[in-house]
Amino acid sequence: MVSQSEPFLLINFKTYLEATGKKAVDLALKMEKVGKETGVKVGVAPQFCDIAQVAAHVEMPVFAQHIDAITPGAFTGHVLAESVSAAGATGTLINHSERNLKLPEIERGVQHAREVGLTIVVCAGTARLGAAVAVLEPDMVAIEPPDLIGTGRAVSKASPGIITDSVKRIRNVNLAVTILCGAGISTGEDVYAALKLGTNGVLVASGVVKAPRPEEVLLDFCNAVRRLA
Amino acid sequence: MVSQSEPFLLINFKTYLEATGKKAVDLALKMEKVGKETGVKVGVAPQFCDIAQVAAHVEMPVFAQHIDAITPGAFTGHVLAESVSAAGATGTLINHSERNLKLPEIERGVQHAREVGLTIVVCAGTARLGAAVAVLEPDMVAIEPPDLIGTGRAVSKASPGIITDSVKRIRNVNLAVTILCGAGISTGEDVYAALKLGTNGVLVASGVVKAPRPEEVLLDFCNAVRRLA
Amino acid sequence: MVSQSEPFLLINFKTYLEATGKKAVDLALKMEKVGKETGVKVGVAPQFCDIAQVAAHVEMPVFAQHIDAITPGAFTGHVLAESVSAAGATGTLINHSERNLKLPEIERGVQHAREVGLTIVVCAGTARLGAAVAVLEPDMVAIEPPDLIGTGRAVSKASPGIITDSVKRIRNVNLAVTILCGAGISTGEDVYAALKLGTNGVLVASGVVKAPRPEEVLLDFCNAVRRLA
Amino acid sequence: MVSQSEPFLLINFKTYLEATGKKAVDLALKMEKVGKETGVKVGVAPQFCDIAQVAAHVEMPVFAQHIDAITPGAFTGHVLAESVSAAGATGTLINHSERNLKLPEIERGVQHAREVGLTIVVCAGTARLGAAVAVLEPDMVAIEPPDLIGTGRAVSKASPGIITDSVKRIRNVNLAVTILCGAGISTGEDVYAALKLGTNGVLVASGVVKAPRPEEVLLDFCNAVRRLA
Repeated sequence: MVSQSEPFLLINFKTYLEATGKKAVDLALKMEKVGKETGVKVGVAPQFCDIAQVAAHVEMPVFAQHIDAITPGAFTGHVLAESVSAAGATGTLINHSERNLKLPEIERGVQHAREVGLTIVVCAGTARLGAAVAVLEPDMVAIEPPDLIGTGRAVSKASPGIITDSVKRIRNVNLAVTILCGAGISTGEDVYAALKLGTNGVLVASGVVKAPRPEEVLLDFCNAVRRLA
Repeated sequence: MVSQSEPFLLINFKTYLEATGKKAVDLALKMEKVGKETGVKVGVAPQFCDIAQVAAHVEMPVFAQHIDAITPGAFTGHVLAESVSAAGATGTLINHSERNLKLPEIERGVQHAREVGLTIVVCAGTARLGAAVAVLEPDMVAIEPPDLIGTGRAVSKASPGIITDSVKRIRNVNLAVTILCGAGISTGEDVYAALKLGTNGVLVASGVVKAPRPEEVLLDFCNAVRRLA
Repeated sequence: MVSQSEPFLLINFKTYLEATGKKAVDLALKMEKVGKETGVKVGVAPQFCDIAQVAAHVEMPVFAQHIDAITPGAFTGHVLAESVSAAGATGTLINHSERNLKLPEIERGVQHAREVGLTIVVCAGTARLGAAVAVLEPDMVAIEPPDLIGTGRAVSKASPGIITDSVKRIRNVNLAVTILCGAGISTGEDVYAALKLGTNGVLVASGVVKAPRPEEVLLDFCNAVRRLA
Repeated sequence: MVSQSEPFLLINFKTYLEATGKKAVDLALKMEKVGKETGVKVGVAPQFCDIAQVAAHVEMPVFAQHIDAITPGAFTGHVLAESVSAAGATGTLINHSERNLKLPEIERGVQHAREVGLTIVVCAGTARLGAAVAVLEPDMVAIEPPDLIGTGRAVSKASPGIITDSVKRIRNVNLAVTILCGAGISTGEDVYAALKLGTNGVLVASGVVKAPRPEEVLLDFCNAVRRLA
């Protein structure tokens, strides 16, 4: 059965100053408000140090941006799944194009996140890699062509073929996984196009975080989601 | 002028479950209490996700265990100096043997930490590497031979020659840097020996964190420091 | 159509002194002799610096042990597919458990090897990772559980379930790829078992290279292959 | 005693197609001819796969572009010092800005190269890093600011301050090490300037390798060296 999951909009705060410290909490609160008002499922992925504060202030899904493929122990400077979970995160990205992992780390990361109860989104830059990681049975796969990230040229408009090819290849090996797409998403039109191409949501960063009024951009996204409902 | 800094005991929480989440706060509170009661300077280095909670509950120095050599921007899953600072950390380790960095990253990390106002401790596994990183002018260098870490065989007792050689080589290139040592430190005797060998403090992890009563171990350490005063 | 390729025995020379420099050429000559006498397809994977000399002395397939995911240019210290090809290699391993790559590098490595005309074997440590890399359509996948490598306990005898699971998962996504297995292979029995489990050959290193008489071990392997013909 | 070593010009072939396979041998022969005719010490650093062929055809110093910090054993896909030595190399670069190493790997690389009898050149991108690696007592340090590499704007002309600062800082910790500089070097003037600033030679790549007539560029370099003699 192909995943029929409710559309999901995940806002990646990256390491932008606009979303660091107190500003991370403020931004998350704005995102939560729009999500609640529109009834659209919205999540945020703040920096590690901000997870606890953000999770303490909002009720939406809070994701880490990365976990290391480690279990508890002597791993100074690493990010432990149990730690992001204890801070209040309910999910995590791994293998973002800005933080690619070695292949075995992805499998161990997926397994460890599952044991800890984190929803796991594995990122991939191409359709083929999307299918490769879908084989590892994460909860979600996020397709983001690295050369479109941060450009404002939405993958769903500029390169719809990548999305349809990704959906086809991923569904060929995994019917259950939730498929997100990202890179360049900045308008409701981009979100609408992404969902029409068969994805279950978007992963977005600068298009929201660096916008003069992030809440207005997210509202535009959420209205696009509702048009499809 | 050779560094005459007040002895410093820095407790590295690593990714031990005994020092994750609420337990990180509890442990930091215990450490703070001993430090205050004995008048010895004690700091803690919890995991990223715990920095904010720990810093909110204690007045002692709180360190990150690592920062990435990045400035604010599109660096998903990385650790930004500004972020650990905003969370309340006043310092950071980098290049721990469990999280070694490429050489240029160490220099950029030192520079960036300085700009952000973080006290920076660069770790090194050998005397020669200690001198190499001292050339980069961090606030502190921590010498930890990797093969003694976690063994309970203290570097200051099992391999005093490494410490004296480190101190000599480091002072040859940098008179101001504070010198810590670590690996296997688990008793006040170990701390006393480390200070007698010319270091300005210790970096300790399992010897305290995994002890049945960490506060008793730290008290033993602090009493050793006071014996020297 | 499931791959019906002729069984293939690939000898990985790793960085063993027993297979370095002139000894690499000597060992390759011995391997070639056994392959020719038994009519079994045998290949060797010497170190980079030995490829040219080995390829000049034998007519069997010569593989590199790794290529970097680069195209010609300013990549000091990297291994260019065009370079191993010019030296006489006709194939290459990538992503060996001793040299794991980030996920996007595997895709680019496969593509670049294809453009240069190299047969590409992608290694994977688990059944699931075997299927993940099979999605990338390399010529061959080699399944090697890292914890059995170098043990002398053959994966095909000690953990046959890993092999059957690998074959099933790989065939589920790719019918054409040649499947090798490895780790602990040291007798003809191990090779026979591997082929019976549905693989198309083995990847072996210490079992042959570190044997007192490598040619006798390989002869044992080749006779096992012929028993199945 | 400050190093008074004879000026040394080291040509890094990188992974340029113009210096791959047979072209590597041809280029090395041209370089050797100019060096012999002018009496200037010239070395070449071809790709791993080309070391044996190059070393078989020339009598000049042949360097590897990198070695891994390993000893003989199970390190598939790595570059063993013993292997480059067996192929005929007499030296190696490590830590080039295109192939930076973790700090402990540099120390182990220097030690292992010494044991194997290879002349070792450690690269560094800044004056401070040059001094840091000089502490590790390699045979040579090569200063190459990464942002000038491949630009044709010579470090010795565009940023002479980096060179003088490097020489000063390096000599402060190591009087014996040979100091090379590189990045953007493309004329005899650039070489002359580099030597006048206190270096003992240059490391050059595209300025020679990608020139229409590399031998003419090298001749220009060598004449500049002789002007100083």
